[in-house]
Amino acid sequence: MTSGATPHSETLERAVQAIEDRSYWSAYPEHPKAYGEEAPDEGEAAFHALLGNPFETDQMHDGHRDVAESSPFGIELGITYPSTDVATVIGAATEAMRSWGSASTDDRAEVCLEILDRLSIQSFTMANAVMHTTGQSFLMAFQAGGPHALDRGLEAVAYTYREQKRLPDPLRWEKPQGKRPPIIIEKRWITRPRGVAVLIGVSTFPTWNGYPGIFASLAAGNPVVVKPHPGTILPLALVVRTAREVLRDAGYDPNVLQLLVDTPDAPVAKDLVMRTEVGIVDYTGGSLFGDWLEQNVTHADVYTEKAGVNSVILDSVRDLGSVFRNLSVSMTMYSGQMCTTPQNIFIPAGGVVVDGATVPYDDVVTGFVTAIEGLLSDDARAAAILGAIKGAETLARIDEATSLGTVLCTSRAVENSEFPDATVRTPTIVEVDGSSDAYRKEVFGPVIFVVKTTSTSESVALAKAVALESGAITWLAYATDELTQESIIDAAVDAGVSVAFNLTGGLFVNQSAAYSDFHVTGGNPAGNASLTDPAFVARRFIVVGVRLEPGS
Amino acid sequence: MTSGATPHSETLERAVQAIEDRSYWSAYPEHPKAYGEEAPDEGEAAFHALLGNPFETDQMHDGHRDVAESSPFGIELGITYPSTDVATVIGAATEAMRSWGSASTDDRAEVCLEILDRLSIQSFTMANAVMHTTGQSFLMAFQAGGPHALDRGLEAVAYTYREQKRLPDPLRWEKPQGKRPPIIIEKRWITRPRGVAVLIGVSTFPTWNGYPGIFASLAAGNPVVVKPHPGTILPLALVVRTAREVLRDAGYDPNVLQLLVDTPDAPVAKDLVMRTEVGIVDYTGGSLFGDWLEQNVTHADVYTEKAGVNSVILDSVRDLGSVFRNLSVSMTMYSGQMCTTPQNIFIPAGGVVVDGATVPYDDVVTGFVTAIEGLLSDDARAAAILGAIKGAETLARIDEATSLGTVLCTSRAVENSEFPDATVRTPTIVEVDGSSDAYRKEVFGPVIFVVKTTSTSESVALAKAVALESGAITWLAYATDELTQESIIDAAVDAGVSVAFNLTGGLFVNQSAAYSDFHVTGGNPAGNASLTDPAFVARRFIVVGVRLEPGS
Repeated sequence: MTSGATPHSETLERAVQAIEDRSYWSAYPEHPKAYGEEAPDEGEAAFHALLGNPFETDQMHDGHRDVAESSPFGIELGITYPSTDVATVIGAATEAMRSWGSASTDDRAEVCLEILDRLSIQSFTMANAVMHTTGQSFLMAFQAGGPHALDRGLEAVAYTYREQKRLPDPLRWEKPQGKRPPIIIEKRWITRPRGVAVLIGVSTFPTWNGYPGIFASLAAGNPVVVKPHPGTILPLALVVRTAREVLRDAGYDPNVLQLLVDTPDAPVAKDLVMRTEVGIVDYTGGSLFGDWLEQNVTHADVYTEKAGVNSVILDSVRDLGSVFRNLSVSMTMYSGQMCTTPQNIFIPAGGVVVDGATVPYDDVVTGFVTAIEGLLSDDARAAAILGAIKGAETLARIDEATSLGTVLCTSRAVENSEFPDATVRTPTIVEVDGSSDAYRKEVFGPVIFVVKTTSTSESVALAKAVALESGAITWLAYATDELTQESIIDAAVDAGVSVAFNLTGGLFVNQSAAYSDFHVTGGNPAGNASLTDPAFVARRFIVVGVRLEPGS
Repeated sequence: MTSGATPHSETLERAVQAIEDRSYWSAYPEHPKAYGEEAPDEGEAAFHALLGNPFETDQMHDGHRDVAESSPFGIELGITYPSTDVATVIGAATEAMRSWGSASTDDRAEVCLEILDRLSIQSFTMANAVMHTTGQSFLMAFQAGGPHALDRGLEAVAYTYREQKRLPDPLRWEKPQGKRPPIIIEKRWITRPRGVAVLIGVSTFPTWNGYPGIFASLAAGNPVVVKPHPGTILPLALVVRTAREVLRDAGYDPNVLQLLVDTPDAPVAKDLVMRTEVGIVDYTGGSLFGDWLEQNVTHADVYTEKAGVNSVILDSVRDLGSVFRNLSVSMTMYSGQMCTTPQNIFIPAGGVVVDGATVPYDDVVTGFVTAIEGLLSDDARAAAILGAIKGAETLARIDEATSLGTVLCTSRAVENSEFPDATVRTPTIVEVDGSSDAYRKEVFGPVIFVVKTTSTSESVALAKAVALESGAITWLAYATDELTQESIIDAAVDAGVSVAFNLTGGLFVNQSAAYSDFHVTGGNPAGNASLTDPAFVARRFIVVGVRLEPGS
């Protein structure tokens, strides 16, 4: 430890290294066992203690309000949250910015890492909160909602820290003047937050998608107002409560982070973001509101992740069995409710080359559907993979999808023995021609399109057209020869979509690794920002230069 | 030289070092004598050869068109420019992006540096072009239009290059799986341009303000359509012609850079920027159109520098004479037509502390006005400092300003012996109270407000309020004690204004040094971007990730 070291400085240094070399690293264990034997029960107990009670964040409020939060697993949540309003939170945030914005970059980073640490300790509480509000299976809720989200948060702190620490300060600037004495100026640079930041949470991955914006804003000195999705409040409420405790313990105004909840009947997001004090908006969710933000919030920087249509391109493989094993998991886990889940699988009518020999189209399709049906044939296993369905619209789409093409697999209800009221459904799989319009827009949830194309070239062209029209975050392509791979990469670059090739093992295309993978490119309608890259953080603060003529 | 060295790689490496350490450096000599004895005459001859003739850029056009370009020095320009239209340039740019966008980061940087070098060789031609279209004196036109602008361009290349080169490529990513074999993924990252870039030029500093956007966009692979100010076309036309020659010589589609001229009667900028192919807009100019761009161009990234009201805060000094010498130059050079020129000088009614003793307000004001009158008393010297007035509106404001307060100095016409038709005027100086509204908005041109305040605290508060209302790029403060300095710095940080202290020597507040000073903070209405910082370049390209499961 160096003399300037703080409890978290080594972790921060390691995170900065990780975003430079982009190799595998994690600060928060993803294995539940790493948290000790008591942790699971303690977390569950802590979660149950929250149910049916007012949730306290220790922020100014006029009572607690009922909300429209509900559990896809069918349990009664009944949590009420502090009731406040836009004017109150904006006023308190503006006040909190004075001290937080003038704290040092190092001190702010230290507080951010302490928040992440205290959230990490609560990973089992968070897992239950994420599971029961989003419908994720317990393991996914634990990993994606806990350690993986925390890694995304730390990654954002590392980027923001690095950008702010770039400036040599102070500096003696000396410009030669030929035979005359040089011009000498003493220079400093002072960073300042951009303004009040707003985080508009998503219903499915509130922490994983929320932490990058929250922690990048915090690390740059901006106070954050957290406005969760009206149907998924608890996970971000836990974040706000924990952060406020850390802030208070560290001697800062806890209003650096505030919670503002609303209901579908009386949404507050538009009023909130249109306040002139707002300098930053981070949003994950549907395209309708995301587009509205991009087009109307011109007084603040807006970072969006919106809808997208992800594709699988099947051209040639070594072994179909391992391909289907990988695909059947990635296309069904959490019932297709991940922003990175493939929706479409493009298969050429001429079939797929398997280790040199061509397997006919019909056999490939049958194999694919059979693999998914097999994986989900056992209710216990199906429930663990599928999680539960969040949102009535998603449930409706499963059945509506049967009218969109030839039904290859009919959705069925799955029993969850632990949570009998859980809404669990296997996917609808429909087959369409390339000329169909059905697969060209996002059908969010457990709906899979098998798209029959004339050739791999057409598959690629269609996937590209769909990405440019409707957005896309990920492609997964199976192609064994380099030329085909290169042509798919070219199309992915044009379409602004990240692409994975030939996944047959333990990595699923849905997974995006902190410190290494960029999530969303910003190059198509799926979003205008990438989590996390320099562009995501560099405008969250401004730099004021100070010049002084010495001796004057 | 390393094995991968190219003609310009050492210069680029040095520029990257300069943006890291921010100490003084320049790649292009600012002393005219460095260019050889013949250069001045050759440049003048080259400029005269352009007058009255069609300007050739070798781009597709349907003839040459008359424009509204005019010289503040009163000479007849009479240059016609290629006539083309929005659809043609957008089509050609989109086509050019294919090859330019897929060139390597190194190759693009090399081309950018070659363009800068070839422009440097023409610095005397450019000096004449800038002088006779903007009204700058010859020396300013030479330095700010030539080497200083080129340094800003190289700085932008260095930033863009550095951001693109950050990604380790390729990478073998290895995630441990306990006792099982690790997950191994081969990763690549491919950068891609954002889209067609548009540069909307300014009438006063077309190259200095234009190069950062042009070269950042080029270095990131975006083709650039240059739409000069209708009254100041020639400097950017020279840039386009030179760049196209370099591009062609290097084997690229010259339509990577295109010129699109218009006239005040038939402006094309709105049609141009609203094209969906446009991904980037760089703008310098008035706030009316800048605000329109920020509010309406939501499909592209918009970088603006708009109007601002810069202030001098006079509190305490060592020696008033040297303060007035510095101020009289900075507030009159190029007739206040620099975006960094102070417009207001705030002086407390109680006077200014000079080396411990208080000099009464009236004496300070008299001294200030006398210094400016003295500096400009000789017509030859006045003409060299003032340059000439660009734009009829600016001329009108000089006389209108006399109604805005107590006139301390009446503007007079100055004779320019070399250019008898030049429009040269000394500034109007008016005195107002802090309660006046007159000084709170930009009065562009040679108009100076002496603002009488109750105290330095009021001076600072008013300067801050004006900056937040109307924008500001620079403050110049004179304060000898640290506490006052710190309170001014706090206000500058709040107002998002760079601040210089106690300038009495060879540095003027108007000057912003490439590689060291950030121009515009983005933190007030003077503009939303800073030249050049990571935020200015990081969104000009996107990154597409490629993941491959090895051996599959």
